[in-house]
Amino acid sequence: MTSVGIVGAGTAGLHLGLQLRQAGIPVTIYTNRTAEQVGAGRLPNSVAHHAVTIEREQRLGVDHWPVEEYGYDSHHHYFGLPEPIVFRGDFPRRSRAIDYRIYQPSLMADFEDRGGVIEIRDVDVPDLEGLSEKHDLLTVASGKFTLGQFFGPAEGRQPLPGPLRRLQVGLWRGIAPNDPKGVSIAASPGHGDLLEIPIYSFAGHVTALLFENVPGGALEKLVDVKHDDDPAAFRQMVLDVLREHYPLTFARVDEAEFELTSPNDLLQGQFTPTLRGDYGQLDNGRYVLAVGDIHSTLDPIVGQGANSASYSAQVVGDTVLEDQTFDLRFMRKVAERRRNRVEAAFDWSNLMAGPPPGHLLQLVGAMSQDQDLRNEFTWNFNFPDRQWDILATPERTAAAIARSAAHAAANAAENGEPIHA
Amino acid sequence: MTSVGIVGAGTAGLHLGLQLRQAGIPVTIYTNRTAEQVGAGRLPNSVAHHAVTIEREQRLGVDHWPVEEYGYDSHHHYFGLPEPIVFRGDFPRRSRAIDYRIYQPSLMADFEDRGGVIEIRDVDVPDLEGLSEKHDLLTVASGKFTLGQFFGPAEGRQPLPGPLRRLQVGLWRGIAPNDPKGVSIAASPGHGDLLEIPIYSFAGHVTALLFENVPGGALEKLVDVKHDDDPAAFRQMVLDVLREHYPLTFARVDEAEFELTSPNDLLQGQFTPTLRGDYGQLDNGRYVLAVGDIHSTLDPIVGQGANSASYSAQVVGDTVLEDQTFDLRFMRKVAERRRNRVEAAFDWSNLMAGPPPGHLLQLVGAMSQDQDLRNEFTWNFNFPDRQWDILATPERTAAAIARSAAHAAANAAENGEPIHA
Repeated sequence: MTSVGIVGAGTAGLHLGLQLRQAGIPVTIYTNRTAEQVGAGRLPNSVAHHAVTIEREQRLGVDHWPVEEYGYDSHHHYFGLPEPIVFRGDFPRRSRAIDYRIYQPSLMADFEDRGGVIEIRDVDVPDLEGLSEKHDLLTVASGKFTLGQFFGPAEGRQPLPGPLRRLQVGLWRGIAPNDPKGVSIAASPGHGDLLEIPIYSFAGHVTALLFENVPGGALEKLVDVKHDDDPAAFRQMVLDVLREHYPLTFARVDEAEFELTSPNDLLQGQFTPTLRGDYGQLDNGRYVLAVGDIHSTLDPIVGQGANSASYSAQVVGDTVLEDQTFDLRFMRKVAERRRNRVEAAFDWSNLMAGPPPGHLLQLVGAMSQDQDLRNEFTWNFNFPDRQWDILATPERTAAAIARSAAHAAANAAENGEPIHA
Repeated sequence: MTSVGIVGAGTAGLHLGLQLRQAGIPVTIYTNRTAEQVGAGRLPNSVAHHAVTIEREQRLGVDHWPVEEYGYDSHHHYFGLPEPIVFRGDFPRRSRAIDYRIYQPSLMADFEDRGGVIEIRDVDVPDLEGLSEKHDLLTVASGKFTLGQFFGPAEGRQPLPGPLRRLQVGLWRGIAPNDPKGVSIAASPGHGDLLEIPIYSFAGHVTALLFENVPGGALEKLVDVKHDDDPAAFRQMVLDVLREHYPLTFARVDEAEFELTSPNDLLQGQFTPTLRGDYGQLDNGRYVLAVGDIHSTLDPIVGQGANSASYSAQVVGDTVLEDQTFDLRFMRKVAERRRNRVEAAFDWSNLMAGPPPGHLLQLVGAMSQDQDLRNEFTWNFNFPDRQWDILATPERTAAAIARSAAHAAANAAENGEPIHA
């Protein structure tokens, strides 16, 4: 019987492990933190799972947070131009954000309940050869930097020179939710973006504020000022930024209630988005497969990291179920099957985190006039490959805008409405 | 509205055109022969369509030859060793062979009935630029050699130095069918293989004899002797070859009835199996997509050509339906989606047509002892990628044999049967 080793207990590792356990395959996950340590740790991110990921969780039997209670419906867009642009896109099926300090320990327990083995230990590059000989397939699903070096940069890709954004994410109480319940995506041109995410955490239903700050812009202080030096001043700084840069969120703040839910519920830092090789070969001849963050590290600006990791895990799981010879042919199959979607998530995230090109601004303008187009853009948070079909080139964006306009005109004609040129 | 031009009216061109017409997309097929000329021509091949292809024809609404009447169930294998090896593999769903001089004119009529346009003209490389400007997407689905040069050899592939086999195929009456009805695949080691195929042609249900002769072997005369010089001597030569090399087919010959159904129902020749680039770019910047034979020209030894062409056409059709910007991104998507299966058909065909490696002989030996394994091999004529999962390396073949043996042992244990080591 094939045995699979997985280094890392994040979304990629857990979803892959759970899928393989459904097929009765022996799986060991290696991680350096117990479920209790994960639960007691610092806020790691504020990622949402979109409907395609939640449906995968349903198939894995780990959807413990029904979207009726925990989910949300919409993206509320705000562009802080002299004439602000404001519009909303709706999901046909809900997304959902759960604090990973709740989510991951819960799935670790599910994995063990289903016969998976979790071994608590550090793993670094020198350990891979030994682990590869304990299993038929060894995968790395950890974001650990030194392990990333084993896989090297993705072929044919120029590495980015540095971070595109500098980040602060924290959990706050005292912000009234949007109506309909949803994520706010607000741009302060030249300075950064704010993602305001309804999230379920230890304090209940609270609000994650993810500040995506442009390096060199006015908002870098959000990353550099330390909360614990002066919590009141830190809170005031965040409030002032909301008032000046993100007024629609500020308008829903109840200043009497507004506070960080805990000093631990805050993360500041930056990293360079990186796409690495799909697999590496050890000196013993065996291949090691990269999945999740170690394969593609994404800026969180469009919340694709966990969804891409879960998708990638499923490609690996499906391929293991049909082919259990883990040679170069296997590695290439996995690489080919996931490339379009995983690279689209990477390219789209980088486009959104970099200086906005003209065709992105054109799409924003068109979306403000076209409900179908903004709903398509919103739903495509589930399908980064389709989003990239729209955004990969100016020609593609123009074609998407024209297609949606033609569709609207045809609908209007069908309904006997006058068509405006 | 997107318009698509297709050069070539073979299986790839017709299946693609029919799929696009189902979606209402304007399609023009360019071909140098009318349906009447195709019908009146020389036998072009003796290819069978497997169940996955027939199911595609059902979706296209062109399955005019129900497998209950026209199909067959089995592969009858014979290896002419000092101790002959004989075994049978069964299909869970039937395959079917129809003379392409009946099949293609029928689908050309279907295509025109559904609003497709067929334009009768020659197309060569200098014509591609003009055609590319008449359509949003231009595809080449013709086997024409000069058009193949436009796409060049597939990247990272060493071209074959020449033909692997020299071919004679003819339609014959006077051979009683196999029971169960099926294709005979007989090997005369060192000399060649015979594929005996139940096929429906103008003369009704007859037998195609496809002689796959090893260059330099004793059977090259089948390709070099001309029928029309002395039809009686030609018939006698074929009979003598059957008697000496393919005795199980010879045993079913009624010599009083045995004859070619028509002098036109015979084809002799050879070609070099070739894998070409997925697409090429014209001087005007537009891309042209290769599909079917022009992309991968297969030795017919395992009858994959038409099935691979139809599969490839569907990948193109599906991609057009989801993305109508025909740039490099589109071309790469098509290339990636079909690569594993199309290249597996190519690699497997070449493995079977070349000198047999040890692991192929091992698989043959194991199949002779293992009904499940030979049924899997037979069914995999529908799935060349799965067949190549078994045959790509000696390790993979050993794993497939061990897996099937373990499965058989587990079944036997479950049924309380003794397990033989």
